[in-house]
Amino acid sequence: MIKKLLVANRGEIAVRIIRACKELNIETVAVYSEADKESLHVQLADEAYCIGPTASSESYLNFTNIMSVAKLTESDAIHPGYGFLSENPDFAELCDECNITFVGPSAQAIRKMGTKDVARETMREAGVPIVPGSEGLIKDEDDAKQIAESIGYPVIIKATAGGGGKGIRVARTEEDLIKGVRVTKQEAETAFGNPGLYIEKFIEDFRHIEIQIMADNHGNVIHLGERDCTIQRRLQKLIEETPSPALGPDLREEMGDAAVKAAKAVGYSGAGTVEFIFDKKNERFYFMEMNTRIQVEHPVTEMVTGVDLIKEMIHVANNYTLTYTQDEIKFEGWSMECRVNAENPFKQFMPSPGRIEMYLPPGGFGVRVDSAAYPGWMIPPYYDSMIAKLVTYGNTREEAMDRMKRALDEFVIEGVHTTIPFHYRMMSHEVFRDGDFNTKFLENYPIMEEE
Amino acid sequence: MIKKLLVANRGEIAVRIIRACKELNIETVAVYSEADKESLHVQLADEAYCIGPTASSESYLNFTNIMSVAKLTESDAIHPGYGFLSENPDFAELCDECNITFVGPSAQAIRKMGTKDVARETMREAGVPIVPGSEGLIKDEDDAKQIAESIGYPVIIKATAGGGGKGIRVARTEEDLIKGVRVTKQEAETAFGNPGLYIEKFIEDFRHIEIQIMADNHGNVIHLGERDCTIQRRLQKLIEETPSPALGPDLREEMGDAAVKAAKAVGYSGAGTVEFIFDKKNERFYFMEMNTRIQVEHPVTEMVTGVDLIKEMIHVANNYTLTYTQDEIKFEGWSMECRVNAENPFKQFMPSPGRIEMYLPPGGFGVRVDSAAYPGWMIPPYYDSMIAKLVTYGNTREEAMDRMKRALDEFVIEGVHTTIPFHYRMMSHEVFRDGDFNTKFLENYPIMEEE
Repeated sequence: MIKKLLVANRGEIAVRIIRACKELNIETVAVYSEADKESLHVQLADEAYCIGPTASSESYLNFTNIMSVAKLTESDAIHPGYGFLSENPDFAELCDECNITFVGPSAQAIRKMGTKDVARETMREAGVPIVPGSEGLIKDEDDAKQIAESIGYPVIIKATAGGGGKGIRVARTEEDLIKGVRVTKQEAETAFGNPGLYIEKFIEDFRHIEIQIMADNHGNVIHLGERDCTIQRRLQKLIEETPSPALGPDLREEMGDAAVKAAKAVGYSGAGTVEFIFDKKNERFYFMEMNTRIQVEHPVTEMVTGVDLIKEMIHVANNYTLTYTQDEIKFEGWSMECRVNAENPFKQFMPSPGRIEMYLPPGGFGVRVDSAAYPGWMIPPYYDSMIAKLVTYGNTREEAMDRMKRALDEFVIEGVHTTIPFHYRMMSHEVFRDGDFNTKFLENYPIMEEE
Repeated sequence: MIKKLLVANRGEIAVRIIRACKELNIETVAVYSEADKESLHVQLADEAYCIGPTASSESYLNFTNIMSVAKLTESDAIHPGYGFLSENPDFAELCDECNITFVGPSAQAIRKMGTKDVARETMREAGVPIVPGSEGLIKDEDDAKQIAESIGYPVIIKATAGGGGKGIRVARTEEDLIKGVRVTKQEAETAFGNPGLYIEKFIEDFRHIEIQIMADNHGNVIHLGERDCTIQRRLQKLIEETPSPALGPDLREEMGDAAVKAAKAVGYSGAGTVEFIFDKKNERFYFMEMNTRIQVEHPVTEMVTGVDLIKEMIHVANNYTLTYTQDEIKFEGWSMECRVNAENPFKQFMPSPGRIEMYLPPGGFGVRVDSAAYPGWMIPPYYDSMIAKLVTYGNTREEAMDRMKRALDEFVIEGVHTTIPFHYRMMSHEVFRDGDFNTKFLENYPIMEEE
């Protein structure tokens, strides 16, 4: 039984995990970099330890220091949150070796899904639809050319070690392809230490729809419905919602089944997300990748299912069987999340770190705020720019949007620029409200230039 | 169709109503006393007008000034919130005469329920169980003595115009009774301008359980389950929850049916609450009174039913039929509310007005905050002392309490004393957690002196 848990993360997700632990009567240990001394997660945890300087590589990614704190504090478990060490199989293995429960899947499962070409092949074998493309990694430029010709342009070149919008390039011509392969290989080598690339057919008119799954150590896997994350800017998600306005009940079930199959194929345990490309025109979906961790946008799923995903992660990490069977998962209402970032939407979303002079989150019925911000907090420029996740719930999509609009309207953040004006315009945008759009929404409708 | 609504109230309920209106795309007009110039409801409304000096009698109770603002701003409707003019039939009539929709029941229904002896007789006729006692008002001291003897001591003396814990006195002996009748009569005359009294059997070991009802102008009435408001201090509610840990499904249904009968008996429309005394020992319930308005504790009902009560009030005020049939009202999970007041629980809950230096409400899954507070807000000493309603939701009562505990723990209010330490102790108190207690809980367990 986990009695004391170290949260190997910062910001709102560290706060989120600490909250769940408090409700479960589990003691919490926070870790922080020198830049995060004044952070809310440090204040909320029962204990807090500095694990190194500002640079993530020396603090939040520092195996030794984090493990030393875990040992020093006699923590039984480590929750990695998202980003940082959450999808690092070596860290998961180190936890195992140190007899500390890693709240997440096995190193093996992380590795299989993290190596994109292996994941692709595993999915193919498991019968999960994948985008037409190379079988495994491409060998060389000639191999790439041949594959591209056989599946037809445009194609997408992907680093097998990539993720989160990095190590990806589109090629519309042979010339593009050759250049793209070179550049992406170089980039992947530098960023991920792995130059392996693969190629897929590039589907242009698609929605990003993902399925939340939850699995235990006893072979049980369920899904908790989809999240539609189609509103993105440069592959970074900005608005997420569930259900998806694009899915009917049949497709939802098919996609859910496919996600469960995907998780089973790698012996998955814990919370995970299977991301799909949804080809709107043909109403077909293809495996994109699996994120073997909790995701930023997990709250919308919690709002419509009532399931506390962080608590359930801890529950299965304790070796219990899942609290719910598939039949017990019911979906009620509609939920939407806006990522409120410290960025200036009027200036190409330029980062706007600095001190929050005044801070008052919105409240009332159907409004949830997940944040590590507080009045006087200095947002450090070194990490991601998210200030708060503003989540609303409504009986209908329209109500969730109208509630979001009023919540955005009353959200007070002074001292830095934020993406609140962007989200406010989105909530009034006719095309967004209609629900019929693809991932190019922001290219097609330059929201901040309109009016 | 209501297009513009004046909110004739202040504090969190004014904010609550403005939020609902914004989500419904209804323009809002705030009114405020000189002491409330800096209030949040003033800042959130589309327009705001000062209606008089600090004293409620000259501002929030000032018919003429409020009606003048309504006319000036061309408002179609007035929502009275709770307290102030919310149960004033003369004001409801004035609205009618001025062709402004009063968001609430008819003056007639308010009057019938507001005159406690008439309400008692109406309930008797409608077959709603009432506590044994006088038929109508008592004539004089002799009459009182005779009734008390026939029903047996202890008895309770109640002002027919009373409410909210005022104009009530218990008598355990004849001597008590005679003195009590004199004092209460005097008090009622002064406070309510109506000296009428009635007498009821005093049930000592009881819970306060109330039923939320909703009715339209077309004769449809539904109930939305119960709220248990047994935790009180000097007749002021402190913690409310739904469902009640004391009711089984049969009693719940019986009580709901009785409440619907009560509302139908007075031709009710809008949101209302039928309060019952629940005699634990005998598992019987008796009509206490009906509050012909929205109540402070309405959020817990919203959390378990998903019904936005303020929106539904506006909906029926627009003359529509109810959005829901009785069968469509489903109850899911557990919700609890703690009233966070500017009072010092270590010093007999002495009021503690002043400036809020630092303010950070809790957030995350299952937490709702309804408040008009913000960092720097000066809490005026002239009105009620409530700073925030902290509401949690959980799958079980235990989860709702554990979540409340962690939310209380992270709620930052600096500059004034608050009741947060009281609520925190309550959430850990074994007897409270067990759920088996009566309205004397705080007399039996002096929470702030324990440990």
